[in-house]
Amino acid sequence: MKFLITGEKKPENEYDLVIIGGGPAGCTAGLYAGRFRIKTLIIANDFGGLINDAEVVDNYPGIPDVKGSELGKKFLEHAKKYGIETYLDEVIDIKKENKFFKIITTKNEIKAKAIILATGEKHRKLGVPGEKELTGKGVSYCAICDAPLFKGKEVAIVGGGNASFTEAQILAKHAKKVYLIHRRNWFRADPIEVERVKKIENIEIKTPYVIKEIKGNDKVEYLVLKKTREGNGKVVETDETKKLKVDGLFIAVGLIPKSELAKKIGVKLNEKGYVIVDDYMKTNVEGVFAAGDLTDKASKFRQIVLAAAQGAIAAYSAFEFLKRLD
Amino acid sequence: MKFLITGEKKPENEYDLVIIGGGPAGCTAGLYAGRFRIKTLIIANDFGGLINDAEVVDNYPGIPDVKGSELGKKFLEHAKKYGIETYLDEVIDIKKENKFFKIITTKNEIKAKAIILATGEKHRKLGVPGEKELTGKGVSYCAICDAPLFKGKEVAIVGGGNASFTEAQILAKHAKKVYLIHRRNWFRADPIEVERVKKIENIEIKTPYVIKEIKGNDKVEYLVLKKTREGNGKVVETDETKKLKVDGLFIAVGLIPKSELAKKIGVKLNEKGYVIVDDYMKTNVEGVFAAGDLTDKASKFRQIVLAAAQGAIAAYSAFEFLKRLD
Repeated sequence: MKFLITGEKKPENEYDLVIIGGGPAGCTAGLYAGRFRIKTLIIANDFGGLINDAEVVDNYPGIPDVKGSELGKKFLEHAKKYGIETYLDEVIDIKKENKFFKIITTKNEIKAKAIILATGEKHRKLGVPGEKELTGKGVSYCAICDAPLFKGKEVAIVGGGNASFTEAQILAKHAKKVYLIHRRNWFRADPIEVERVKKIENIEIKTPYVIKEIKGNDKVEYLVLKKTREGNGKVVETDETKKLKVDGLFIAVGLIPKSELAKKIGVKLNEKGYVIVDDYMKTNVEGVFAAGDLTDKASKFRQIVLAAAQGAIAAYSAFEFLKRLD
Repeated sequence: MKFLITGEKKPENEYDLVIIGGGPAGCTAGLYAGRFRIKTLIIANDFGGLINDAEVVDNYPGIPDVKGSELGKKFLEHAKKYGIETYLDEVIDIKKENKFFKIITTKNEIKAKAIILATGEKHRKLGVPGEKELTGKGVSYCAICDAPLFKGKEVAIVGGGNASFTEAQILAKHAKKVYLIHRRNWFRADPIEVERVKKIENIEIKTPYVIKEIKGNDKVEYLVLKKTREGNGKVVETDETKKLKVDGLFIAVGLIPKSELAKKIGVKLNEKGYVIVDDYMKTNVEGVFAAGDLTDKASKFRQIVLAAAQGAIAAYSAFEFLKRLD
């Protein structure tokens, strides 16, 4: 689901600002940086980010009912209108060298006076036997990508948040039967999404269960579930074990920050690994700003419009920082 | 420039959530509240808010080159899609009565369990002799509204921020001559806007001057200017006085928060009169949330996308608050 608008042009050796990440935060930072007339490069290994996984986005104000990848394209095109450059590559390392940051990608080294980190999040693993071995063989982290592969089959999705509920709806359009598995009897998901799922005939909510193992040789054959109960607000496993025959398992148990680069340049993270920023999207490292789901502030809400807003603020702060350098 | 999509229907007597204000923050709060299935009413005396004054908005990510009033309409329609109600009226007072807030408008009294304040800002006055008397007689606070009235005439605009620079460009399309007056030789406005203005032949930047008086009987005839200089970063008036013959004066010297209602319900304001909110858009008063340019956090940046993001967060916090009440 990645769209490759850019990446054909080799970047220059030096920019005032390099933005790492091409999702709503990175692209909005680019839009604002362009308006501020900052010489800017966005480096990303895919533009759009996690919203590419969304079949329909209907909570970005003013743009109703849009495909996630289409919305990502709109953000990128809006930024490019202001003359910033984009480059499709993966950043491996960042070092501070005198007055510059040296950004090392798989194919290039680029210097920048300021950096905005907008690398976002990635899918959390379930961490059970069989998960690694059967990924791509029935285990998937992206319903929108892989749902069509399960036409007429039986699948399960695990998780209690918006992601699992919206993805269950997509799966139900393709699969014969969808089991939504969650370790509690209640859900973090928005009530509207829960309502929708409950009305769909071929979705069965299976709670409270945890998945203990994913079984199968060359492809997923069945799941080993264990019934749970809540004790003092915590999930406790019971002795009741159960097999569930499925052809596929979609894992939607949350996201973790892609903060490896932030760490390398000495940026402080919170206990969950998110970048700590102030109201101006400044990190503890001078000249390094952060925006979007990578930050501790956005990760509480994880909304496209907030990631975009933080991108705008980060660009503003970078502008103020660069002004003082001259 | 106000658009009246709604207002025809009498509101009910009681809602779970009342949002006061119909700009980007209020409408986005409405969109999210609707998605959260909260029984919601937005009350506003105009929908769209200050963005209605903008001829072109090109910094709301994903929607390039849009008329401000059009963008406001998009926000409102997106919110209404989720079944929330809207009501065109002015809120005069808010009182706490037992478990409810009583919201008193010019025509109704409405009860709500929670409130989101999103009343935004209004134009700051210059505060000089002649301003009050000549408002509507050549003195204006909205170039997009009144620029066409000055076709072929000479006008001045006062201010050094983005507002005055973007409005000068609009004025230049209508007026024969535009003077941009500012009390300093440098500007808060984005460099891109300053660049644009400097390229326009019929705009003359007149700095550093302050306006001491607006003169005219039945309409603006001339301005009394005083030259200034900077001393230790402060603007100091010199003895040099000057008359400037103009047919109109546009005042774009900033905005002040519309926080009268917030004050009435006991919400804490900062020293500039903006509502103090935390990261969750909570005020100090339980059940009262705030979003958009009215808040201390947004007023530093004053961007549509940030106001919208805050609206989303405020709705989320109101949802969490209402859940606990049941």
